[in-house]
Amino acid sequence: MSIDFQPTLESIPPPHVVYRFKPLPNSVPVNQTPLNPVSFLLRAASIYPNKLALVHKDVKYPVAYTFAVWAQRIQNLAYAIIEAGIRPGDRVAVIAPNCPLIADAHFGVLAARAVITPINIRLTKPEVDYILEHSGANLVLVDHEFAHLTKGAKARVIVSNDTGRAGDPYEAFLASGRRFGQEKGWEGLEMELDENANASLCYTSGTTGRPKGVISTFRGSYLGAVANVLESRLNEESVYLWILPMFHACGWTFPWANVLSYTTQVTLRTVSIDLIWNHFDNSGITHYCAAPTVQIGIINHPHSHPLGRPLTAVIAGSAPTAHLIGELEKLGIKPVHVYGLTETYGPFTRNYAKKEWMALSHDGRSKLMARQGHSFATADDARVVIHQPDGSLKDVPEDGKTLGEIAVRGNIVMKEYFNDPAATAKAFAGGYFSTGDLAVKFPDRTISIQDRSKDIIISGGENASSLSIEQELANHSHVLEAAVVAKSHPKWGERPAAFIVLNREGQEEWSGQHKEFEEHLKKSLKGKLPGFAIPEWVYVVEDLPKTSTGKIQKNRLRQIVAENVKSKL
Amino acid sequence: MSIDFQPTLESIPPPHVVYRFKPLPNSVPVNQTPLNPVSFLLRAASIYPNKLALVHKDVKYPVAYTFAVWAQRIQNLAYAIIEAGIRPGDRVAVIAPNCPLIADAHFGVLAARAVITPINIRLTKPEVDYILEHSGANLVLVDHEFAHLTKGAKARVIVSNDTGRAGDPYEAFLASGRRFGQEKGWEGLEMELDENANASLCYTSGTTGRPKGVISTFRGSYLGAVANVLESRLNEESVYLWILPMFHACGWTFPWANVLSYTTQVTLRTVSIDLIWNHFDNSGITHYCAAPTVQIGIINHPHSHPLGRPLTAVIAGSAPTAHLIGELEKLGIKPVHVYGLTETYGPFTRNYAKKEWMALSHDGRSKLMARQGHSFATADDARVVIHQPDGSLKDVPEDGKTLGEIAVRGNIVMKEYFNDPAATAKAFAGGYFSTGDLAVKFPDRTISIQDRSKDIIISGGENASSLSIEQELANHSHVLEAAVVAKSHPKWGERPAAFIVLNREGQEEWSGQHKEFEEHLKKSLKGKLPGFAIPEWVYVVEDLPKTSTGKIQKNRLRQIVAENVKSKL
Repeated sequence: MSIDFQPTLESIPPPHVVYRFKPLPNSVPVNQTPLNPVSFLLRAASIYPNKLALVHKDVKYPVAYTFAVWAQRIQNLAYAIIEAGIRPGDRVAVIAPNCPLIADAHFGVLAARAVITPINIRLTKPEVDYILEHSGANLVLVDHEFAHLTKGAKARVIVSNDTGRAGDPYEAFLASGRRFGQEKGWEGLEMELDENANASLCYTSGTTGRPKGVISTFRGSYLGAVANVLESRLNEESVYLWILPMFHACGWTFPWANVLSYTTQVTLRTVSIDLIWNHFDNSGITHYCAAPTVQIGIINHPHSHPLGRPLTAVIAGSAPTAHLIGELEKLGIKPVHVYGLTETYGPFTRNYAKKEWMALSHDGRSKLMARQGHSFATADDARVVIHQPDGSLKDVPEDGKTLGEIAVRGNIVMKEYFNDPAATAKAFAGGYFSTGDLAVKFPDRTISIQDRSKDIIISGGENASSLSIEQELANHSHVLEAAVVAKSHPKWGERPAAFIVLNREGQEEWSGQHKEFEEHLKKSLKGKLPGFAIPEWVYVVEDLPKTSTGKIQKNRLRQIVAENVKSKL
Repeated sequence: MSIDFQPTLESIPPPHVVYRFKPLPNSVPVNQTPLNPVSFLLRAASIYPNKLALVHKDVKYPVAYTFAVWAQRIQNLAYAIIEAGIRPGDRVAVIAPNCPLIADAHFGVLAARAVITPINIRLTKPEVDYILEHSGANLVLVDHEFAHLTKGAKARVIVSNDTGRAGDPYEAFLASGRRFGQEKGWEGLEMELDENANASLCYTSGTTGRPKGVISTFRGSYLGAVANVLESRLNEESVYLWILPMFHACGWTFPWANVLSYTTQVTLRTVSIDLIWNHFDNSGITHYCAAPTVQIGIINHPHSHPLGRPLTAVIAGSAPTAHLIGELEKLGIKPVHVYGLTETYGPFTRNYAKKEWMALSHDGRSKLMARQGHSFATADDARVVIHQPDGSLKDVPEDGKTLGEIAVRGNIVMKEYFNDPAATAKAFAGGYFSTGDLAVKFPDRTISIQDRSKDIIISGGENASSLSIEQELANHSHVLEAAVVAKSHPKWGERPAAFIVLNREGQEEWSGQHKEFEEHLKKSLKGKLPGFAIPEWVYVVEDLPKTSTGKIQKNRLRQIVAENVKSKL
């Protein structure tokens, strides 16, 4: 299956382009080239100049760039950024949905040795103001739909109308770069010599307090991308669909991983399950990344059907339920379940399926597949630890029971929180980055998240994991999604409160009988969960509040149960 | 298809092994772990402890180790090496055919922060003496069959009888390490903190002069292995057959690449085409590396047949002919044609097949596939240059004609020639490693080796490439192998002399009529090669002299034509 798209015939690079940065100075040993993900683009354009690199459809002005054409546009962007006065280490903010602008920026900004600062398009104006101020970005590349978010910004703002055509201010910006760099080409651009220099600055979605700026490096971005190619088995026959927003932790390094593997990328400006299925059916998609909430939408779509060809779904953002994993497999979609945070370039651990699991029941296997697994190919060890009074870290026993915190270190861990040494020091206490995620370790060394520390429900002195309650709820044949939070209880301290979204069958079955369903559900959990973990309250709702990245906003839910105002949803 | 092998049930590691080096000191930033290929083993043993890692068959005492058992043996080896007084940076020599001893050493020596120094088993005693002396190795691990090569060595010598059983001196050495390290485990071993520290010392087979010692680093070995996994698409379902000797450029980093990808490795102690086909048929082999001469043996074996399942052949050592590539494809064997040297960790460039080549004739496509291609995933650019009088390097035009020298740099180029700063400086002149291989560059940026500089035949002032003559000769339906060297000529200065090995058909057809075949062959080349490139002399021989790594010994052939003594072959 191939994409029914002709490459856009513009910006054709001159013949005999040299895909090489300026020669490295003699101070760099012959056996060392600083790791830099931009080098992936130079190789791809050199080896497969005529292969489709980037396809942008489902918009008024579709484009499709080959690697040669795309590399030329990125070179133009790098020169335009430099001409705009951006110096190495300066921040360049990008506010855009998945489209060429933000894909370009992941290479062009780094080629100019600047720091890409993607900003979530769903943030409010004050939040964007804060990030622009905090990052000190003095250039902003913004998609026209979100240009209002940059109103009053001190930085220079370049608007893209997402047309790829003359008259678009972004195209004019690229053209200025082309004029400026034309004769020098790639060899006029200096490669960043320090592979530990800042490459990106991503702000955490921070449910409480101000968002924190996560600094990643050229080396980390390179090695993170290498790992993602290996773990998801991307190669030159792959076609990747951009569902995951690229502004989220730099798209988990996939903007670079896709190019390292010569994968054709399809950018989806608006996430719609209709469009996703259309691409699955007609664009030869082989890979995509998405949070469980989107995956749930995919499996429950009226047109969902087995594809009869390989499709790999990288899942992260929150833990998938065993049920979701099973449903994906029924469609022939191979789930690669990974776990990570913005602080770990996205994915850091992966669930590695074992042959012997095939002998298990579907349920047993799915439960094992819902675990977070082991650390990634280029990651250092992922530990589950208890912080000791002397500041050291002690591993929990591999008993599948003892709760500790996931702590990680190594090449795909962030460098620091930008301009926040106190927060960095706190996060790095003990020589590891403490994730705040609570997990257990099993005898097979897999780790399994039980909860964020604040998601543990302490009921009568017992620790109930909201996640494992949610896993159980999601197994019910009428449940589409479930979220559980603690609600204070006069006798037990806290008790679980469950929010349930019914699926179509469930809606039909229990229409007007939510009270009855709540009783039925509680009864059905007996024996499956310890008494203290059975939700005291069950609320059937139409929808769950989510962050822009698809995470359920537990703080909203906590607020709702605290105020006892169910109607607020 | 699976291997009919039960794991060897010994050395079972204790439960709850921690697969982690000693914690890194606080001086190492949280976001940096030194790149080290030993980390691949720790991950593999942690994730897939019960998967077969290493299978050694076709010997009196076969063994099959799981990753957990193998990691324990390697840990024992590391401790034994340390206990033997080896300090970080010291050299540990290994003299062995493909077997567990040398596979172990690629991890155990590095885990002890020492430098693995594999020595070619086919060298003479004086050559081995020279290498042992030059490397300063003070520990030698030697296979019993080659123990005589260490006679009189100043270093401590540990002999392996390749039994894996009690009573074997190597097993006793491992047991000593186990006693020494038992309580400390992996966490008792310090990780090499400098990723640019020496990891291996491999001696070039050097056809003239003393062999040179090539130093590679931990970082380079890691990144070379990453590239080989990506380029040959190794993964946890792969089974790799060890045909290429591991002592040759550390097996092109495959000892580490296989473990990074959780591949099961099968060590073939003796390279026999019978055994190779037996493994193809019965061991589920998916990958192997071999020089063209071995590949020719594989395709011409009486039992050769299409396998009906994927098998990837990585080809290097010398340039494959278009004919060979075509024949491999007929058997369903996918050739991955790579090029490199000991100085580049083995493979450095690869031929990347293009979709559009499928429209070409078989011959046209095979010719493109015989080119050396582009640089590897983690390699820096491979250039074709002419050294300028001012010491700088100038790229040849991309015209497919102008001859230059292949020059490379970056993370998978050697660090230096051991204890030979003059040779290092010469090789690194201009900031690149000059390979000595002469090539042209085509408009599609592929490079194509024409010859080693000394293999160019200067005939009447014209440069004739012995390689392109050999390519043409190999296309003849009666030719099995061909080698061409320069022979002095009173009128033209030099003229090509061709040595031909006939295939079975050719032997039948021209039995007793070699003179007639020679005339016929010369005539058949007219129009295909320029007049000055048509061999003046054609010698039909039974066999070609080869180095231990399968390269044709052109210097032998030159000597023969110089002495005009054909019978010497």
